[in-house]
Amino acid sequence: MLATMLYGPGDLRFEEVPEPRIEKPTDAIIRLAASCVCGSDLWPFRGLQDVKAPQAMGHEYCGVVVEVGSAVTSVRPGQFVVGSFCISDNTCPHCRFGFQSSCENIEFMKGAQAPLARVPLADGTLVATPDIPSEDLIPGLLAASDVLGTGWYAADAAQVQPGATVAVVGDGAVGLMAVLAARQMGAARIIAMSRHKSRQDLALEFGATDIVTERGEDGIARIKEMTGNVGADCVLECVGTEQSMQQAIYAARPGGHIGYVGVPHGVTFDGAKLFFAQRSMLGGPAPVRRFLPDLIDLVLSRKIDPGKVFDLELPLSDVAEGYRAMDERRAIKSLLRV
Amino acid sequence: MLATMLYGPGDLRFEEVPEPRIEKPTDAIIRLAASCVCGSDLWPFRGLQDVKAPQAMGHEYCGVVVEVGSAVTSVRPGQFVVGSFCISDNTCPHCRFGFQSSCENIEFMKGAQAPLARVPLADGTLVATPDIPSEDLIPGLLAASDVLGTGWYAADAAQVQPGATVAVVGDGAVGLMAVLAARQMGAARIIAMSRHKSRQDLALEFGATDIVTERGEDGIARIKEMTGNVGADCVLECVGTEQSMQQAIYAARPGGHIGYVGVPHGVTFDGAKLFFAQRSMLGGPAPVRRFLPDLIDLVLSRKIDPGKVFDLELPLSDVAEGYRAMDERRAIKSLLRV
Repeated sequence: MLATMLYGPGDLRFEEVPEPRIEKPTDAIIRLAASCVCGSDLWPFRGLQDVKAPQAMGHEYCGVVVEVGSAVTSVRPGQFVVGSFCISDNTCPHCRFGFQSSCENIEFMKGAQAPLARVPLADGTLVATPDIPSEDLIPGLLAASDVLGTGWYAADAAQVQPGATVAVVGDGAVGLMAVLAARQMGAARIIAMSRHKSRQDLALEFGATDIVTERGEDGIARIKEMTGNVGADCVLECVGTEQSMQQAIYAARPGGHIGYVGVPHGVTFDGAKLFFAQRSMLGGPAPVRRFLPDLIDLVLSRKIDPGKVFDLELPLSDVAEGYRAMDERRAIKSLLRV
Repeated sequence: MLATMLYGPGDLRFEEVPEPRIEKPTDAIIRLAASCVCGSDLWPFRGLQDVKAPQAMGHEYCGVVVEVGSAVTSVRPGQFVVGSFCISDNTCPHCRFGFQSSCENIEFMKGAQAPLARVPLADGTLVATPDIPSEDLIPGLLAASDVLGTGWYAADAAQVQPGATVAVVGDGAVGLMAVLAARQMGAARIIAMSRHKSRQDLALEFGATDIVTERGEDGIARIKEMTGNVGADCVLECVGTEQSMQQAIYAARPGGHIGYVGVPHGVTFDGAKLFFAQRSMLGGPAPVRRFLPDLIDLVLSRKIDPGKVFDLELPLSDVAEGYRAMDERRAIKSLLRV
């Protein structure tokens, strides 16, 4: 089959590779309904993260099961499934506490920018839908696999409650999904920090009530001003830089909560400053598996439409253009039709 | 009157100073029932924190009101009161959210190692008891002012719930109070990390179920071993060094909670490591005022006896020996009879 391999910075190839096979009895093979490009795929593509050997790219996925290993009991060929980018057994203590992204047997999904993919630990990772979903729901279900689940976790980790004032740092795909999540969790006010018109519009469509274009100190000052000099109850950090983390911490009120899902790159915290800031912080790779059943229900019942986050649609063979469009910020997120 | 002044490292003087007066209409003057020495008093005493001018020492206090300013309405002369080491108005938004230690008008108490002390913002800071408490309850009420309230906050910030497995890092006075707090909040298992027999005994008396003598990596490994390789649900960090913070973070399970109340000295966190550790963290100066009414009730009804944390009792005039005994770890905490 033709699939997506990264050989080095900028060297993305759509090339012939062997079809995936069942390697362990806990595996499943799925035929992807669609695939997409994640912001985190851009790190190695840009050369900001090592590529030691050709990498099979893609970790967001949904589609139809074509084969399962002998130990798989919860899904069967013919079923439509959505899985998390974090592969988990869903039975270890960390999984049972709802932190499947810290599973004792964690693996990270790969090779999903392809027509077929192997999903390890299928029983603990995949969630089947009741029926084969209609075509227009595929982008939303695909989003649940990572980008929506990650935005959702930002809101969950920041303990968004009904009536809360929420600020979202970052207007990438994850930040926009975090806006949607905060809305679903009943936030009264959702301040999206964005300076790009198309992203502001999408943030408003997903439920943002206010837009702040300022960044850094000015952004913090603006949020203080908008909240009677108090700060937000919850801040969802969806970038991962030093500046965005500082912005997140100080945009929150003392005792407020920061959920951070942007993988920190070159970020350090001063212990004493964090102490006197007195904000609660929880971050990490999103335990998407915890949220998947609910997210799938919300998509299937058309209560949310996270698929709108895809603003570029390409055939899988144009995957390199999907990366470039995101890298150059011409696209928020690229959907790949397989 | 004779009171405690710090002139520089090791240069603690018990000397004649003017009696405190009402300076603002929101002030109260109290006659202390007892005073004590805090672990944090040792930082400037040891020269690890600057002393720019002679400092009036002491920030833990309880006693009888002798005079109030014209704007004070909630306490009156003759009442017995306990106050927080953080002076707060208890009306600003941060106070209303329960974070009085981030009050918009915050001050830190001083001059309480003396017979008389001035308490600013008396209405927002002091809590009166129904009657004059009996003499044997004074140490417990004094503890509520800071050391108990701070240990309590560690447990509160770490979200200790009934049935939780809790680890306490630090066997100083605050750590011991954190054990007591975790017990009151219904923790099923309380692992005190201590290598000193007298402190281990007190920890057990306050409710610890297990003692771990190992530190650092060994301490983390021991806690993992004791919890089926999972880690503690909640870790209460009561030291504030790089080693103790690392110990706290990795003794917790993924998704677990760290409440840190030891003021961090020279501590930094790596953002990416914290992200992948996936632990929730909240720390800061304790909002003791939030807890004071409940803590006072628990002491007055003799449900808790935090006064046991004082293992040395001296007349106020021997305050310097009180400092030295704690500095040399001959005492856990020194009570000063005024």
